[in-house]
Amino acid sequence: MKKKNITYTKYLNIDKLLSLQKMESEKHNDKKHDEMLFIIIHQSYELWFKQIIYELDSIINLFSSNYVQEQNLGIVISRINRIIEIQKLLINQMSILETMTPMDFLEFRNYLNPASGFQSAQFRIIENKLGLRLEDRIKFDNKNYDDYIDASEKKIVNNTENDLSLFELIKKWLERTPFLQSSEFNFWIEYEKAVYSAIERDINDIQNNKNLNEDAMQSSIKHYDSIKNNFKKLFSKNGFPNDKNRLSQKAILGAIFILLYRDEPILQLPHKLLSQLIEMDQLWTNWRSKHSLLAFRMIGAKIGTGGSSGYKYLNKATSKHTIFSDITNLSTYIIPRNELPKLPDEIKHQLGFYFTYGEKK
Amino acid sequence: MKKKNITYTKYLNIDKLLSLQKMESEKHNDKKHDEMLFIIIHQSYELWFKQIIYELDSIINLFSSNYVQEQNLGIVISRINRIIEIQKLLINQMSILETMTPMDFLEFRNYLNPASGFQSAQFRIIENKLGLRLEDRIKFDNKNYDDYIDASEKKIVNNTENDLSLFELIKKWLERTPFLQSSEFNFWIEYEKAVYSAIERDINDIQNNKNLNEDAMQSSIKHYDSIKNNFKKLFSKNGFPNDKNRLSQKAILGAIFILLYRDEPILQLPHKLLSQLIEMDQLWTNWRSKHSLLAFRMIGAKIGTGGSSGYKYLNKATSKHTIFSDITNLSTYIIPRNELPKLPDEIKHQLGFYFTYGEKK
Amino acid sequence: MKKKNITYTKYLNIDKLLSLQKMESEKHNDKKHDEMLFIIIHQSYELWFKQIIYELDSIINLFSSNYVQEQNLGIVISRINRIIEIQKLLINQMSILETMTPMDFLEFRNYLNPASGFQSAQFRIIENKLGLRLEDRIKFDNKNYDDYIDASEKKIVNNTENDLSLFELIKKWLERTPFLQSSEFNFWIEYEKAVYSAIERDINDIQNNKNLNEDAMQSSIKHYDSIKNNFKKLFSKNGFPNDKNRLSQKAILGAIFILLYRDEPILQLPHKLLSQLIEMDQLWTNWRSKHSLLAFRMIGAKIGTGGSSGYKYLNKATSKHTIFSDITNLSTYIIPRNELPKLPDEIKHQLGFYFTYGEKK
Amino acid sequence: MKKKNITYTKYLNIDKLLSLQKMESEKHNDKKHDEMLFIIIHQSYELWFKQIIYELDSIINLFSSNYVQEQNLGIVISRINRIIEIQKLLINQMSILETMTPMDFLEFRNYLNPASGFQSAQFRIIENKLGLRLEDRIKFDNKNYDDYIDASEKKIVNNTENDLSLFELIKKWLERTPFLQSSEFNFWIEYEKAVYSAIERDINDIQNNKNLNEDAMQSSIKHYDSIKNNFKKLFSKNGFPNDKNRLSQKAILGAIFILLYRDEPILQLPHKLLSQLIEMDQLWTNWRSKHSLLAFRMIGAKIGTGGSSGYKYLNKATSKHTIFSDITNLSTYIIPRNELPKLPDEIKHQLGFYFTYGEKK
Repeated sequence: MKKKNITYTKYLNIDKLLSLQKMESEKHNDKKHDEMLFIIIHQSYELWFKQIIYELDSIINLFSSNYVQEQNLGIVISRINRIIEIQKLLINQMSILETMTPMDFLEFRNYLNPASGFQSAQFRIIENKLGLRLEDRIKFDNKNYDDYIDASEKKIVNNTENDLSLFELIKKWLERTPFLQSSEFNFWIEYEKAVYSAIERDINDIQNNKNLNEDAMQSSIKHYDSIKNNFKKLFSKNGFPNDKNRLSQKAILGAIFILLYRDEPILQLPHKLLSQLIEMDQLWTNWRSKHSLLAFRMIGAKIGTGGSSGYKYLNKATSKHTIFSDITNLSTYIIPRNELPKLPDEIKHQLGFYFTYGEKK
Repeated sequence: MKKKNITYTKYLNIDKLLSLQKMESEKHNDKKHDEMLFIIIHQSYELWFKQIIYELDSIINLFSSNYVQEQNLGIVISRINRIIEIQKLLINQMSILETMTPMDFLEFRNYLNPASGFQSAQFRIIENKLGLRLEDRIKFDNKNYDDYIDASEKKIVNNTENDLSLFELIKKWLERTPFLQSSEFNFWIEYEKAVYSAIERDINDIQNNKNLNEDAMQSSIKHYDSIKNNFKKLFSKNGFPNDKNRLSQKAILGAIFILLYRDEPILQLPHKLLSQLIEMDQLWTNWRSKHSLLAFRMIGAKIGTGGSSGYKYLNKATSKHTIFSDITNLSTYIIPRNELPKLPDEIKHQLGFYFTYGEKK
Repeated sequence: MKKKNITYTKYLNIDKLLSLQKMESEKHNDKKHDEMLFIIIHQSYELWFKQIIYELDSIINLFSSNYVQEQNLGIVISRINRIIEIQKLLINQMSILETMTPMDFLEFRNYLNPASGFQSAQFRIIENKLGLRLEDRIKFDNKNYDDYIDASEKKIVNNTENDLSLFELIKKWLERTPFLQSSEFNFWIEYEKAVYSAIERDINDIQNNKNLNEDAMQSSIKHYDSIKNNFKKLFSKNGFPNDKNRLSQKAILGAIFILLYRDEPILQLPHKLLSQLIEMDQLWTNWRSKHSLLAFRMIGAKIGTGGSSGYKYLNKATSKHTIFSDITNLSTYIIPRNELPKLPDEIKHQLGFYFTYGEKK
Repeated sequence: MKKKNITYTKYLNIDKLLSLQKMESEKHNDKKHDEMLFIIIHQSYELWFKQIIYELDSIINLFSSNYVQEQNLGIVISRINRIIEIQKLLINQMSILETMTPMDFLEFRNYLNPASGFQSAQFRIIENKLGLRLEDRIKFDNKNYDDYIDASEKKIVNNTENDLSLFELIKKWLERTPFLQSSEFNFWIEYEKAVYSAIERDINDIQNNKNLNEDAMQSSIKHYDSIKNNFKKLFSKNGFPNDKNRLSQKAILGAIFILLYRDEPILQLPHKLLSQLIEMDQLWTNWRSKHSLLAFRMIGAKIGTGGSSGYKYLNKATSKHTIFSDITNLSTYIIPRNELPKLPDEIKHQLGFYFTYGEKK
């Protein structure tokens, strides 16, 4: 292992790194102190976006084989965990920008026109790699997102629209969930039974509840009708995907199985992964929401440089640009542990480790 | 100063405090481990709500005199700062609840029915004291918020609807902003002139910009039309309050003055206060937004115990239950420092300290 | 499932909870505004301490069986994770107390004398349950920690000194680590070989490095001597426990095995657990460190009410009251993956799952 | 205001920024996934260090005039506040590095040898600009800090040793505190009287306290002896600076005055500034402390690449490299508000604003 005498400064290219902050206000001989922060914070965002893409690529790669080895599942989980920690930082980082007042921003805002964070190619790549589809994107000023991307980056961004996204790979992985069906056990059928029996028992309880007046009783029962309908859609053959759900029924089936039996050793990591997807999604939502509030605070209801309101765009995107809401939504379909179908011994055994950790003979 | 030998345990009533956690699941002989967390976290929330109310009361009291002394403004600011730090904690605290999975919550959820965080009297009191009006509240299941309050607390909650709220007191305080008009200076008139001249100059720039094609030019000019309209409303005699704005024109006038000249010594604390109101508002928004995501993650699209969807209520309230959006929105109306009307010497002098801190002769 | 109509207010005992804040300054007819915060924040700390003890008890219970089932390991991990999230909150919560100035604290400080956070029984119980030994505790003013505990709580606190602590249980669990020795494989011997061969190769590289001058070479080689010595102690029969290390050699052996082969499916959760112990430990260290800084800021070098300096005690305890530093310290003994002894197929197979998650053929 | 059509990508030099991450492991044809994170996080740190230096320079510049105008004090405070927010981020950012395990770090650690964060020139510049003196620095492996700085940066770093530091400027500013002495009032003398009378009264109370046994009484009185001694040093002519304190007596006098009367309008911003200096200091302490724990977790007690233990260096620096501990320590010398010397009307009047905000006639 030969190596030259590397220094921190050279290793990290510090000199080049610190030469990339060019204030537009200074170029116009009207230097505004706060522009530096504006540059530094955005460059820091882009560095972290690069890291997120780097981790996403490795995760997508690990998921792209025909099957995902358990060993790799651990790696995937630790890398998504890293993305999650970065996302938390991205959100916290906004507090630094909040030390800039609208008046101070206004001083140099015009010099940047029409540059806008909306043009970040890396952020669009992240969205595409996660699985945000073109048709689900909020339009900005009636234009597609890629109309705002610099020509030099447009092709790279567009290419990521067609690559297999994390969403698609998770879907396939869920569809491959084992144990769902054997000669003696069909999870789907058993679960349907368990669900309806639980609902019937609840309705029965309500009808026999002498503390309820007629109104409350009717309202409660109506409530259960809607629950039943929900489950009917879940179990019906052509229920998925539909206009609200992107996952196939098979994938949802797998995910519910993992959720319900996640205490079994072999399902603990898969369950962790599903939780992470929800968390990642919600952190992007938090990010957009905080971003939107910040934009509103900085420029109010002013129309943005592109002729449209950035605040309103961000606000809409906050709730619409989620990727894994199908998985978040699974809580709708779970029933308490004590009402779950009992797994046959054979499957139960497969879900455990053949070796009980710590037991020594 | 005579005192008995007080101990930590007695001072804080630790024994009583630690005896207030009664798990419903345990009462039903079906103890579920995670219910303890559910109790502890909500009790902790209520302790902090008490502290927020305590600080709010003191702030409202300081603002209720005919005028607010500078000395007290400093106190008000430090107490709002405390509320803000508490709000940040309330938001962070949700991460602890996120360690509970939907499956674990489901285990004891039915035992709590129909108790719900929606019934927190203290939270409603906070909203009322801040200035959330009954008519601006999102209804929950077509009922008023106070239909969900325990009978024992209803009167206290309702009373706070009629008390002078922080919003009302801030409004009056802003209306009293001095310096706006003297024999030789009328801020409102000067500002109107400055605004229109800035807009005219921008439009002129656009029309002379040879890099713009016809389309871009028309769109930019249309954009400025809308800006102009916005300002027209601001300056028109009967512009405020309107369906979007609760503040009076006079109060907005005062707030804009503070915003524009906030570098002047005497306006620094008032400006800090306005920033805090915005931050407090946005933190409640963050809180509701994170709360709504958590509710969705925990129970999915399930209909809540009250027969309605808590998730949807929270989601709506997130954007609608703001109090000080009029102040946040002021960024819409500011223009760059170098275009501000110059203050007459007399006013400029009043805004400074007679004593320049530092050099002593 | 019959139940009365429970409300939020009754469920959480809100009325009692909110009646437990009795300001001493008020009792002395000298009400000081900031005392309320002092009470609320400490009560909130005690609520969270109760939750930590509750989780610790359940974890200790799960670890107390002769062996820990994999299924339970997942539960243990999720509960330690909860403790970790609570610890983060405890640290963040200090920011709220920092909104109180030393002047404001001084206003009511004398009324509380000699009550002190040092008297928190629950905090001592946590330390004991984690495994802090009496002999490792920093004395405060030459007295034992329990001299400060209220008589009513002393016995409970002392009892927890003798219970099996988390540290002891983890030690036993590590000593039971399987796979370390079979007829054909002795991990300890193989690892010793690998370590020394790696060291020899490094020394060789240094001696052949023509870019190094004589001085640098000697210093590098001396450095490796100290590394070698370190490992000699590790492998020597009577190396552990010693005055620096509480763990037995057998437990350390098990922990290193987990660390080195933690990518193997069956070792992923054990590895996660070890990481959590380190994190938990470091968060307590952070907590004490921040607490000590806060105490210094609040009362300076003033001698505390007990006649000794709280600041200095906290400062010492920060670095000495760690529990799992043996585990943190394990990084000292790891070598790169590509130099690890190769596991025999039989063991490798046992460490995997018999079922490869995903595609099934 | 003419400008070319600037884009986000060009404005921020994104292409260059994203080309600066060169993995050493990749150069050795042995690419290790986690090295990317190591590069990105350090580059992000350096970006933020640049921003901190930029703000520090502007603050030092504002303080370098003969006096600091009130208007500028507001600017200084908002910029220190920005530094504080950045420091919080730097600390949080470590959580991302904690997602790297010691095993993964070990994989590429040797490739970086002997590059080390210890060589960051910008961090040393920050320390120098804050006011850390060469003689107060912990030596690393018996060498001065600048022996580790890259030749290309050494001169710049050394130069900052001799520039006026923030500490020196704050000292001068405090020494200029007005109001301390007038023909009719000498704060120092009045304060000395007040202090001793408060102490005498306390001792008297103790001696008359019938609940105290002889031992407790003696110990309490001894305690007050030490307090008295402390104050004697404060008031003695040649008390400062001494081996523990860098501030002059005159500066400490000014700072105590600000602390004691900080409710007066004109002292609110100065008091805020003092609080910020303490917070900035303590955040650096937190940063070093967390950094030291991280180093220990990553490499254990291993000797670092420079032949010395980074962990131990960081640990020592944590408590020794503070700058403003003289100011933190001021809490030692304050007495309750109700025992403060009353300010003469003339001074009281000067400390207020001539205009009472909001009062309108």
